Amino acid sequence: MEEKNINETIELLEQKSFPALKSILNDMMPADIALLFEELDNTDKVIAFRLLGKELAAETFAYLDSDSQINLTQAISDKEIHDVFDRLFIDDAVDAIEEMPANVVTRILNNTDSETRKLINDILKYPERSAGSIMTVEYVNLRRDMTVSQAIEKIRREGSDKETIYTCYVTENRKLVGIVGVSTLLTSKDDQIVEDIMEKNVISVSAYDDKEDVAMTINKYGFIAIPVVDKDSRLIGIVTVDDAIEVIQQETTEDISIMAAMEPIEESYFKTSVFSHAKKRMLWLMILMISATVTGVVMQNYENAISAFPILVSCIPMLMDTGGNSGSQSATMMIRGIALGDIRFSDIFRVVFKEFRISILVSVALGVVNFVRIIIMHSFGILGDTGGQSVYLIAAIVSLSLILVVILAKFIGCTLPLLADKIGLDAALMASPIISTIVDAFAVFIYFKIATTFLNIGF
Amino acid sequence: MEEKNINETIELLEQKSFPALKSILNDMMPADIALLFEELDNTDKVIAFRLLGKELAAETFAYLDSDSQINLTQAISDKEIHDVFDRLFIDDAVDAIEEMPANVVTRILNNTDSETRKLINDILKYPERSAGSIMTVEYVNLRRDMTVSQAIEKIRREGSDKETIYTCYVTENRKLVGIVGVSTLLTSKDDQIVEDIMEKNVISVSAYDDKEDVAMTINKYGFIAIPVVDKDSRLIGIVTVDDAIEVIQQETTEDISIMAAMEPIEESYFKTSVFSHAKKRMLWLMILMISATVTGVVMQNYENAISAFPILVSCIPMLMDTGGNSGSQSATMMIRGIALGDIRFSDIFRVVFKEFRISILVSVALGVVNFVRIIIMHSFGILGDTGGQSVYLIAAIVSLSLILVVILAKFIGCTLPLLADKIGLDAALMASPIISTIVDAFAVFIYFKIATTFLNIGF
Repeated sequence: MEEKNINETIELLEQKSFPALKSILNDMMPADIALLFEELDNTDKVIAFRLLGKELAAETFAYLDSDSQINLTQAISDKEIHDVFDRLFIDDAVDAIEEMPANVVTRILNNTDSETRKLINDILKYPERSAGSIMTVEYVNLRRDMTVSQAIEKIRREGSDKETIYTCYVTENRKLVGIVGVSTLLTSKDDQIVEDIMEKNVISVSAYDDKEDVAMTINKYGFIAIPVVDKDSRLIGIVTVDDAIEVIQQETTEDISIMAAMEPIEESYFKTSVFSHAKKRMLWLMILMISATVTGVVMQNYENAISAFPILVSCIPMLMDTGGNSGSQSATMMIRGIALGDIRFSDIFRVVFKEFRISILVSVALGVVNFVRIIIMHSFGILGDTGGQSVYLIAAIVSLSLILVVILAKFIGCTLPLLADKIGLDAALMASPIISTIVDAFAVFIYFKIATTFLNIGF
Repeated sequence: MEEKNINETIELLEQKSFPALKSILNDMMPADIALLFEELDNTDKVIAFRLLGKELAAETFAYLDSDSQINLTQAISDKEIHDVFDRLFIDDAVDAIEEMPANVVTRILNNTDSETRKLINDILKYPERSAGSIMTVEYVNLRRDMTVSQAIEKIRREGSDKETIYTCYVTENRKLVGIVGVSTLLTSKDDQIVEDIMEKNVISVSAYDDKEDVAMTINKYGFIAIPVVDKDSRLIGIVTVDDAIEVIQQETTEDISIMAAMEPIEESYFKTSVFSHAKKRMLWLMILMISATVTGVVMQNYENAISAFPILVSCIPMLMDTGGNSGSQSATMMIRGIALGDIRFSDIFRVVFKEFRISILVSVALGVVNFVRIIIMHSFGILGDTGGQSVYLIAAIVSLSLILVVILAKFIGCTLPLLADKIGLDAALMASPIISTIVDAFAVFIYFKIATTFLNIGF
């Protein structure tokens, strides 16, 4: 359907069949129009944009990616800028402005009403990751002494300009004293007093709180919106659930990138340039590449063992990979648990004890399977020379090393993310790539230490 | 604050100060009471639960984890079961019932009103991952010929039993013909007709659609709820945004587990037993352990090269790790892009071309740094014997191998997740662990192939 819409739109644009195009566009959802616009070139985008009703144009603008927002804003007239930006919800306007070059921002601020301008400037002053930066200031305000019918009357009068009317905020001298849902108002008797039906036990956040924490709070309580207050508990805005979902998705994408040793990209995959992708991936690859040489140096120290017992070499990748994977499993559990608020640094002893027991079960099972594998592969002549030693001894050495490596890997994997979080680093940094690199060096060391001890090679 | 509440509650329980405890509990949010309950033993949990008002008890029940839900249900009377389950929203009741043993389910169904029982049974018949399984059937239904004031009247009469009144659904012969938000109703004139103000272009989903897709649709359009229809477009339920967030979080957690080579656990980290954790981690570790032996066998084939040029050994871990990390980066980009709906299989050529250009930039940079590193480390005598060859030649061999490995790794990393998704597998399977294992074998092979060619070792 999408594909069809795009082709149809482009055809109608080429034929200059604007009335037909207009009626198609004005029947679509803003989010879908925005997706379609991303396929058009800049000239077509401006033409199509001008066919949208004013309200729809503003709504669509909010869904565009920032490149398209910038291009459109540069192409349209001052009057059109006014029409769009005065209709946008303040949080969407701020989202758009934050990504724009300074000269475009100035032009926008010059072409919006003084009230809108003030609201935009108020929100722009909050730090990038704060609740303040994603809040909106368009909500319905009630007084505690209003009756239900007065409150409903006020909502009906003012509601159309507000981002959400579903939760209304009761204030006194700008201080937040309660909240009341529209559903509560509507299902209460007309002459009841707001104070008697409002929820007084209000959960609110500060404008300087991390927006991720705010999103998690909204999620925890199943809210549609959460009030944002200043240090004197004066209501200054609200954060709505749709922005919370976006924050959660963004933070998860960032975490997943970091867990794969990349700096997060700002735009979508295709919007990000090749050069910028390369830049985001290079740094960690370099660091890990240099770190991995430690394992090489350790390995090289045991040259004699390798030449005397060539069979030992064939087990190195298996040991390194299994150690890395075991450690990554534990690290991933921790990182996700920390992100969801299920695991904290104070749980570290419980975690270590639990991971220790898990690693015993897992490593012994792996060790046994591995022992059998070596015997079988050796009997088929696939493995290297045992250097005159019994294959059972070699298999025992490898399996014992494997067990110790897995136990150690799980210990490293579960503690590093918690420690990173404790000292204020992103726990996601301590994911597979770093854990593997660290475990690799230990794995090779443990392996050759055990091998040389049991095989009596002097060092 | 939480810690304090828990201790206070336990103290009050021990002192049997039930009135004080009751007043504390009845002032808390259901989500917080549920968190507190998880710290209590079963007897205390039942005592505390009985102190809650009926409405709050039902709301709190919905937030409990399934173990606590089962324990509580088994401990309370038939009358109490009735009070809780008839007050729960149907989707929450179904969530709870799905995890319960058969005898408890029978007891619940025997103690709910026939209407509730029918609704529960209706939803239970939908497959686990379907939209039907998370929908609710409690919504406000309007007729197209109603006036705004009639519609508001109906909402005020029926609204308190409905999960959301924020979007109302207009039906004709049970067919969905439009939707109208409460905000639209409230901000319209009393005598307007619903048909004239409703949105006719309704986006709906089927009860058998994957719940993840439904959650993504709710997110895409910023909806509070989405209607669920049967094949004749009759309205059968709605999915609300809070359930959508839960689905998104759950699916992400599952994806992240799978990406770290674990089968997803059902409960939280601490709720899951050591044995069950071990079981979820074992399978993939085994598969990968066995697969990694391929790399070992490849390596072993080049024993002669290793003994002639010991310096070669020290670079193996670096090559394996860098290859694995480069491939994981690309795979992670794809997996997340697929999950967010940004990347599809049809993009595969664009992706491969883009990753190819990225890999050229990244690999050449890594190659140069690595070349310099080898020269420097060799001059300090840290690296092994060059076997009489120039260290520049060795460094060139390693760097050339590195470049080819990174390019190949990024190719494998970007194609496998897309292919997995195409054939209906979970793209998250093709993450770091598998990619690393595959790349490792190629890395060792490429490396020794190049080394033996340039160093003229006969094979």
